[in-house]
Amino acid sequence: MNTTLTNGIEIIKATTSKINEVDFENLSFGSVFTDHLLECDFKNGEWQTPVIKPYAPFLVDPSLRVFHYGQAIFEGMKAYKDENNDIWLFRPDENYKRFNKSAVRMAMPEVPEEVFLNGLHQLLQLDEAWVKKGKGKSMYIRPFMIATGTGVIANPSNDYKFMIILSPVKSYYSGDVKVLIAEHFSRAANGGIGAAKAAGNYAAQFYPTNLANKEGFQQVIWTDDATHTKLEEAGTMNVFFRINDTLLTAPTSERILDGVTRKTLIDLAKREGINVEIRPVLVSELVEAAKNGTLKEIFGAGTAAVISPISGFSYQEVYYELPKIEKSMALELKDKLENIQNKLAEDTFGWTVKI
Amino acid sequence: MNTTLTNGIEIIKATTSKINEVDFENLSFGSVFTDHLLECDFKNGEWQTPVIKPYAPFLVDPSLRVFHYGQAIFEGMKAYKDENNDIWLFRPDENYKRFNKSAVRMAMPEVPEEVFLNGLHQLLQLDEAWVKKGKGKSMYIRPFMIATGTGVIANPSNDYKFMIILSPVKSYYSGDVKVLIAEHFSRAANGGIGAAKAAGNYAAQFYPTNLANKEGFQQVIWTDDATHTKLEEAGTMNVFFRINDTLLTAPTSERILDGVTRKTLIDLAKREGINVEIRPVLVSELVEAAKNGTLKEIFGAGTAAVISPISGFSYQEVYYELPKIEKSMALELKDKLENIQNKLAEDTFGWTVKI
Ligand SMILES: Cc1ncc(COP(=O)(O)O)c(C=O)c1O
Ligand SMILES: Cc1ncc(COP(=O)(O)O)c(C=O)c1O
Repeated sequence: MNTTLTNGIEIIKATTSKINEVDFENLSFGSVFTDHLLECDFKNGEWQTPVIKPYAPFLVDPSLRVFHYGQAIFEGMKAYKDENNDIWLFRPDENYKRFNKSAVRMAMPEVPEEVFLNGLHQLLQLDEAWVKKGKGKSMYIRPFMIATGTGVIANPSNDYKFMIILSPVKSYYSGDVKVLIAEHFSRAANGGIGAAKAAGNYAAQFYPTNLANKEGFQQVIWTDDATHTKLEEAGTMNVFFRINDTLLTAPTSERILDGVTRKTLIDLAKREGINVEIRPVLVSELVEAAKNGTLKEIFGAGTAAVISPISGFSYQEVYYELPKIEKSMALELKDKLENIQNKLAEDTFGWTVKI
Repeated sequence: MNTTLTNGIEIIKATTSKINEVDFENLSFGSVFTDHLLECDFKNGEWQTPVIKPYAPFLVDPSLRVFHYGQAIFEGMKAYKDENNDIWLFRPDENYKRFNKSAVRMAMPEVPEEVFLNGLHQLLQLDEAWVKKGKGKSMYIRPFMIATGTGVIANPSNDYKFMIILSPVKSYYSGDVKVLIAEHFSRAANGGIGAAKAAGNYAAQFYPTNLANKEGFQQVIWTDDATHTKLEEAGTMNVFFRINDTLLTAPTSERILDGVTRKTLIDLAKREGINVEIRPVLVSELVEAAKNGTLKEIFGAGTAAVISPISGFSYQEVYYELPKIEKSMALELKDKLENIQNKLAEDTFGWTVKI
């Protein structure tokens, strides 16, 4: 075992690489992982020395707290390799801040910047051969934390494990996305954990999403749980609505994840001179705009799919097909964003950070 | 290894027992486990052969679905040993049905009765020496299921693991319980997963409960998330309010767990001729009754603590202390229930099931 200590991180290198076994042209999202991972345990009230080591299974007790009481949070971010073989992160501070915001809400310890950001830098350096060049190719980064204390009592754990795992991905063509507007089910409560990237928020959506899938809809657009009149977000994306030439999107709240892609698109759209309104968007307004032809586009925005154009929505058993658009704002913004992320356009906002 | 197959369950006995290392007079709730556990995996669309085997850690991948998307459910039930050394379960069918109800809501496969109930019978028989006699002593039973597929994509898992672990417990004296009525935070959304025993529901409560603890309150009584005017339930207990000689408790709903102790107490109270009203209970009503002296008792009801009397509540920064009561309904009902569970009183309802 080749073990070194670099900037406070212990590094144990894999003796062989799995990289030659991977078909980088046929990657199914989030299913292939690189040679190494970062691990850092929280014990006796403090974070231990972070370790970068070979990606491998680990042992857990059947009474592991996360299995029983669900203390688990994560982040999703991407790294890109440019033409000079430099690797870039996109707004990593935003993910770091959001991770610790999630940690607080789930009564978990905040992760130090050296562990999260410096750890990520070193991990990406070590597995840099896994980051492939070219638009649409990127390294999906999954930092996460789980409660590793034991015992079946519904209290916050004393022990936690923070990890970063890396999964090379290809651009994600989501196909024709039809959505169902939620009329009964919800993803978040007022005063709940909707704004945290908590594991439990996702499992909660699977059943209603399965029901929607069966009716031919790929995604659900969630509405506020009290009245089901306000459009909120999709499973792993914030949503934008284009009415005439104005982009509308809901304000973030306790119920809605504050997406990095969402805030980035708002800034990009404003720079392009597009009128953006951040305000509650009513279902009734959407239906009205669909009926009178002013609804031009709907799209989801998130790290995994970047921008996902939506072709129509269903509400109260009526399906509203969106018009085929010539000059799609969704695709125009997607192109601008991907060019910045891939260092093909100037990053005037200073969003990209070199590894 | 001594392996046998009994009624479709593979049994691998531990070569030595840990029982002599355990101090049964000093048990901290849910922290000690018996020699064996039951495990059954769901793979390729079907449940595999259940196995009873020594309690031990198991290997998991860092991308285990439950860590990332929170598909995890559980049950909590108890077994009691009577004076003849017979072991009894209390209404196990109720827990079995609720487990599968939770499974459906979390898009997980339902567990067959042979695996859950027959498996539990055989597990308890094997570890019967761990079930101790005497009022207040019992075996806490934790059936649970987790998503064991791998990969970081927010979809339901294909693979699952069902387990039952057993933890001997002593009666749980919760001390003086003061509660805070939730004014901002919530545990469940309309159209959410509040009625499921899903892991994520518990983690969601830790942060607001920590805040309450800091102010000197042991528990939070949750209110409906839309208006915060209706009293719902506590962290792991349903709640009852005694106004004059009437017991009030909220109806179960999508937001509230349908507790076995709750429905048992309703039946017991009715048999005792107590007037029970199952209807929305308003915070304003509680405050009013506390002010005019008609509020006599509040108590929580759940498998772990059985009945937990509450000594006072705080709402809008005002603390309302409950009167010291001579003939407490809470303690009377607790006594009646524990006598049935421990086979010290006749079980006219047919709730107890022999192992
Ligand atoms: C619930 C939810 N909403 C929105 C988003 C989009 O956020 P971001 O743009 O930061 O990826 C995500 C995830 O990534 C999400 O999980
Ligand atoms: C949220 C919640 N409410 C109520 C209860 C009480 O249910 P039971 O009486 O079935 O134990 C429990 C748990 O056990 C619970 O977790």
